[in-house]
Amino acid sequence: MPFVGVGLTLLILTGSSFFVLGAYYQHNDFLHKLHRLIQEDPYAFYIRDKLYDTLQLFNPRYLEQLDGSSSRMSEIMKYGFPGLDDIRVYSDFILSYDRRNRVAHWVYEHLHASCLKPNGSRVRRQEEQYQPDMNVPSNFRSDLTDYKHSGYDRGHLAAAGNHKSHQTHCNETFFLTNIAPQVGKGFNHDAWNNLEIYVRELTERYGSVYVCTGPIYKPKRQLRGVRDLENTQTMVEKWCVEYEVIGANTVAVPTHFFKVITVESKLPGGSPYMEAYLMPNAPISSNTNIRDFLADIRDIEHIAGLQFFNGLRRSFFFGTNYPTSSGIYRNFE
Amino acid sequence: MPFVGVGLTLLILTGSSFFVLGAYYQHNDFLHKLHRLIQEDPYAFYIRDKLYDTLQLFNPRYLEQLDGSSSRMSEIMKYGFPGLDDIRVYSDFILSYDRRNRVAHWVYEHLHASCLKPNGSRVRRQEEQYQPDMNVPSNFRSDLTDYKHSGYDRGHLAAAGNHKSHQTHCNETFFLTNIAPQVGKGFNHDAWNNLEIYVRELTERYGSVYVCTGPIYKPKRQLRGVRDLENTQTMVEKWCVEYEVIGANTVAVPTHFFKVITVESKLPGGSPYMEAYLMPNAPISSNTNIRDFLADIRDIEHIAGLQFFNGLRRSFFFGTNYPTSSGIYRNFE
Repeated sequence: MPFVGVGLTLLILTGSSFFVLGAYYQHNDFLHKLHRLIQEDPYAFYIRDKLYDTLQLFNPRYLEQLDGSSSRMSEIMKYGFPGLDDIRVYSDFILSYDRRNRVAHWVYEHLHASCLKPNGSRVRRQEEQYQPDMNVPSNFRSDLTDYKHSGYDRGHLAAAGNHKSHQTHCNETFFLTNIAPQVGKGFNHDAWNNLEIYVRELTERYGSVYVCTGPIYKPKRQLRGVRDLENTQTMVEKWCVEYEVIGANTVAVPTHFFKVITVESKLPGGSPYMEAYLMPNAPISSNTNIRDFLADIRDIEHIAGLQFFNGLRRSFFFGTNYPTSSGIYRNFE
Repeated sequence: MPFVGVGLTLLILTGSSFFVLGAYYQHNDFLHKLHRLIQEDPYAFYIRDKLYDTLQLFNPRYLEQLDGSSSRMSEIMKYGFPGLDDIRVYSDFILSYDRRNRVAHWVYEHLHASCLKPNGSRVRRQEEQYQPDMNVPSNFRSDLTDYKHSGYDRGHLAAAGNHKSHQTHCNETFFLTNIAPQVGKGFNHDAWNNLEIYVRELTERYGSVYVCTGPIYKPKRQLRGVRDLENTQTMVEKWCVEYEVIGANTVAVPTHFFKVITVESKLPGGSPYMEAYLMPNAPISSNTNIRDFLADIRDIEHIAGLQFFNGLRRSFFFGTNYPTSSGIYRNFE
């Protein structure tokens, strides 16, 4: 009789422990598949908290550790998605594509000093590397012919010079999803190029810099003809958005471009520093300082319809965003 | 000795079966949580196939059954998302919000005859129901003051008259996320209203109608001043997008509006029928037939940057989309 008791206890113990083991096994198996999905799919990444919530049993610390072993995506998007329209993941930058305008909404990069130098063999920048991204549906894809004879440069949003560590990284910046029509002389070759060089200087100095670059379609006051039912036209001054479109795919020519730059402190526990620039897509006189284009990030957010830093309070950041001259070299180390 | 053998076998059997039971329990628990998330969150809904793939053990048929017990979201979005920018779920329609223009990208409705009649007490349409949707970040929210004195109507995208079964459904169509600036006389009160009435007639006749409504910002040829480095201006004819913006929140005034209408057949196994309309946001003479505004859906897709029916081949649909006169009453039952 005691044997039966012992036997039963043993059975119950075995049963329950194997039940828990089975549950744990299944849970773990699922967790890893889910984690892989979150690393690969930007929408899964975006709702990752909700997805992990379906597995409430688990310790959030463990999840943080999992996130620590993280993909390039979670590194680049550390400060949140400015928007969620048609997200496209490349190996060294992430962008949101505007299917209406055939130009990205924004491109996010995370630069560190090693990005700027070749890792092994020399990385070459070749003219013929410009190419349409075949992953974009043909209806919304910009093409090389759209830019031809348009009078505009194929301007990089994520600069090729920021992605020199691997040939693939550099090549990917030449996908037309990362390209926008830019005025060449006086802008792309000059003021805009200076801003890109400035970002690389910050990277060499501070080690970790996040850059978000994108187009702006800025409203301006202008006279417009208004017709009434009798078809008589009167001229009225109104706020209007107006921009050119080029080529058969009607690729939009932005009126301005912005860069939102976040520089991380080298000090342990130091807060990051943020600056925003807004430049007209037009010839800019060569004696203009890039500091003249420092902008209030709230203006960029308003006009572009984007939200930076997950809507966090700006006081989270060290330094203000709207100095008349950049204080970054002075105030921040 | 045989007792030990039997005991061991029993232990192994119990252990393995409880292991499976545990795994099954955990699997099922997770499946239900995931299913709930997919019903509530539009991004989870969009990547539902990938999410269910993390549970490959399961029979897809079972998942289909689960989807059958589906939310209003999976009913309304049966023909796929035209785009994925800032999706907002209301109780009887779903929309994608354009944060840059402060007007929806598209609004999807599924109409059946019961939507058009009050379910119980009378549903009232009140002037004071217009209100901003506080779920939109304040930076991107249009407000009642933007429309005031603008000269434009607060025009519904999902028509209030399509949502008469519950007071909540009707009230929600008055959120400014579902509203766009429309020319009143000759458009909102007239041609556009006729199109809305036509959709309701189709619903009463065929029982199940899907409507997607949205704004268009159509490029047109116009003269533009181009400045060179020496600041001399020359006039050149170019393709441009131009639209007015109203109020402090710069709400865009669309140049056109579209409706993509999918009518389901009453016959078992019958294919659906599709029509698309594109109307200028301008006074339209009252003797114009709405059939004159039949449009090629591919044009709407191109200009709006949307993709209907998940990019399915149009031949999936019965009837063509570009008849010179609507064939719906003639060819389709």
